[in-house]
Amino acid sequence: MTRRPEFELIATLFAPLARSCPGALSLMDDAALVSPSPGHELVVTTDTLIAGVHFLDDDPPGQVAQKALRVNLSDLAAKGARPIGVLQALTLGDKTDDTFLESYARGFADDLRHFNIPLLGGDTTSAPPGGPLVITITALGELPHGTALLRGGAQPGDLLCVSGTIGDAALGLRALRDQLPPASETHRTELVRRYRVPEPRLALGQALRGIATACLDISDGLCADVGHICTVSRVSAEIVWRTIPISQAAQRRLSDDPSERSLILGGGDDYELAFTVPPAYRTRLSELAEQTATPIAVIGRVTGRDGKCDVRVMGDDGREIVVPAGGYVHH
Amino acid sequence: MTRRPEFELIATLFAPLARSCPGALSLMDDAALVSPSPGHELVVTTDTLIAGVHFLDDDPPGQVAQKALRVNLSDLAAKGARPIGVLQALTLGDKTDDTFLESYARGFADDLRHFNIPLLGGDTTSAPPGGPLVITITALGELPHGTALLRGGAQPGDLLCVSGTIGDAALGLRALRDQLPPASETHRTELVRRYRVPEPRLALGQALRGIATACLDISDGLCADVGHICTVSRVSAEIVWRTIPISQAAQRRLSDDPSERSLILGGGDDYELAFTVPPAYRTRLSELAEQTATPIAVIGRVTGRDGKCDVRVMGDDGREIVVPAGGYVHH
Repeated sequence: MTRRPEFELIATLFAPLARSCPGALSLMDDAALVSPSPGHELVVTTDTLIAGVHFLDDDPPGQVAQKALRVNLSDLAAKGARPIGVLQALTLGDKTDDTFLESYARGFADDLRHFNIPLLGGDTTSAPPGGPLVITITALGELPHGTALLRGGAQPGDLLCVSGTIGDAALGLRALRDQLPPASETHRTELVRRYRVPEPRLALGQALRGIATACLDISDGLCADVGHICTVSRVSAEIVWRTIPISQAAQRRLSDDPSERSLILGGGDDYELAFTVPPAYRTRLSELAEQTATPIAVIGRVTGRDGKCDVRVMGDDGREIVVPAGGYVHH
Repeated sequence: MTRRPEFELIATLFAPLARSCPGALSLMDDAALVSPSPGHELVVTTDTLIAGVHFLDDDPPGQVAQKALRVNLSDLAAKGARPIGVLQALTLGDKTDDTFLESYARGFADDLRHFNIPLLGGDTTSAPPGGPLVITITALGELPHGTALLRGGAQPGDLLCVSGTIGDAALGLRALRDQLPPASETHRTELVRRYRVPEPRLALGQALRGIATACLDISDGLCADVGHICTVSRVSAEIVWRTIPISQAAQRRLSDDPSERSLILGGGDDYELAFTVPPAYRTRLSELAEQTATPIAVIGRVTGRDGKCDVRVMGDDGREIVVPAGGYVHH
């Protein structure tokens, strides 16, 4: 196995990603300098991806980098923030070689360019024998003071909405494991991409400032994450099963096997936004969807402040669909 | 092995550490909100510690947490910043159990209280079988706009200074490995503590704003880190061996075995500050030392802008001491 020394890795693969930002100090210093715009506050989040847990050992390295970046940007999106830069703490696994790292850095570079943000700093270390690749990204964003979308503001009567389609990532992971073959190669590609390269809903998140009463990104699973809004807001919610937006690829899979419904309700890793808005904003939603080029669907409503903080899913027959307990557990 | 689920770990052990800070959103949200003081910019740094690499498997868990925190605070100190909060990305090793984690969290809590900063957020994940405990801390600090201490400002003629004493941490690590038994149990305790619980020189770093022309913290080893100042500042430097401050515990060890000098010059992990100041500030140094209760020693000077960017160490006989190449490599 060939692997260049850490300082050379940083100089050749990662320092170029910091070039656009003077505050990154060319990754040659102990820390980076960051100034939020006047009147703005900073949003900070950190998320770790581990080989064999949050991505598969044979996932393309460039997409691994992009997933690590995007799950963090998704957290910024859920707050309504604009990303301003990231730090990368990379612990190399004992099998992480130069070939992997070059491809990883290329994917990372492409995405930083795509989202127009610099690498601000980081730390590169090596795991002892047997240790996996561990990627921790810390993302910084900003938003006007006091405008952050939180989890705790949902009110009885609010509409419950989601972006995009739900359940694709969970089906993509099953497809990769040959557990649930999709109906076609095209569908397979679509679902796998949703698992490997989520789309952080940054434009929508920022557009929801001042409109959404609560917001988060769906990483644990639809019901579990709507449950998080309910717990913090101290409300309950009702989801209408047939209004959940499901992609054609997922729909085909479901029509073959309706019992796979739990993958839609409980599968994680979609990184779509789930949010609540006062009913008066119903007409604004299609405008927002158009402005931000993001599909939005109303999937239910906030039912009441009954202290139970539970999430019910209603079927076409008007009866409750029983949801599997707990969220999505990785592996 | 007993280990409570991740959400319970966060709720019971880590959420209490966020209680003092409304922007941490009780660790219940996707991200934290941070506002630097008016006229200030933010300083961000991230550092990873891996079990068996950056600390020993049988180090006391509370001190492991403190080391992970302090090496990051030391980076803030080197920039002259005041810490305002930290994020913790914790990847649990396959042998990390509740007993370890409770003791880890207690040590972490004690130190956050000591440094008067909140835990702002984080992510807790579990490594697959064989994976080690990996701790990545991201520290945020602030300083008045444009006052950050950088590595690139050292000028020929500047005095080269260090805080505290040098080499203790490397000797502490050797003592833990039974490679270099210290002269007494007291000395052993002192040296081991320097390895396990470094002292971030926060007061000194902040006092050096507007005075130091370059500054960093010593983590790779004295010569390697002074070399980093030289490279970025494009100067060379000369260190006078007998002016390097050495603790009594280390001195005793050295007098037994003078060949261990390379541990002073090349040993890492001291987390003292190395900095350069214009000669006009020589008299201010003792004031600064007193104000910040931090020993300061002048150990040499910046010699010239000769393009070589090298660091020479001069012995009592006026001849150069040959320094081992490269920095301190963990294990």
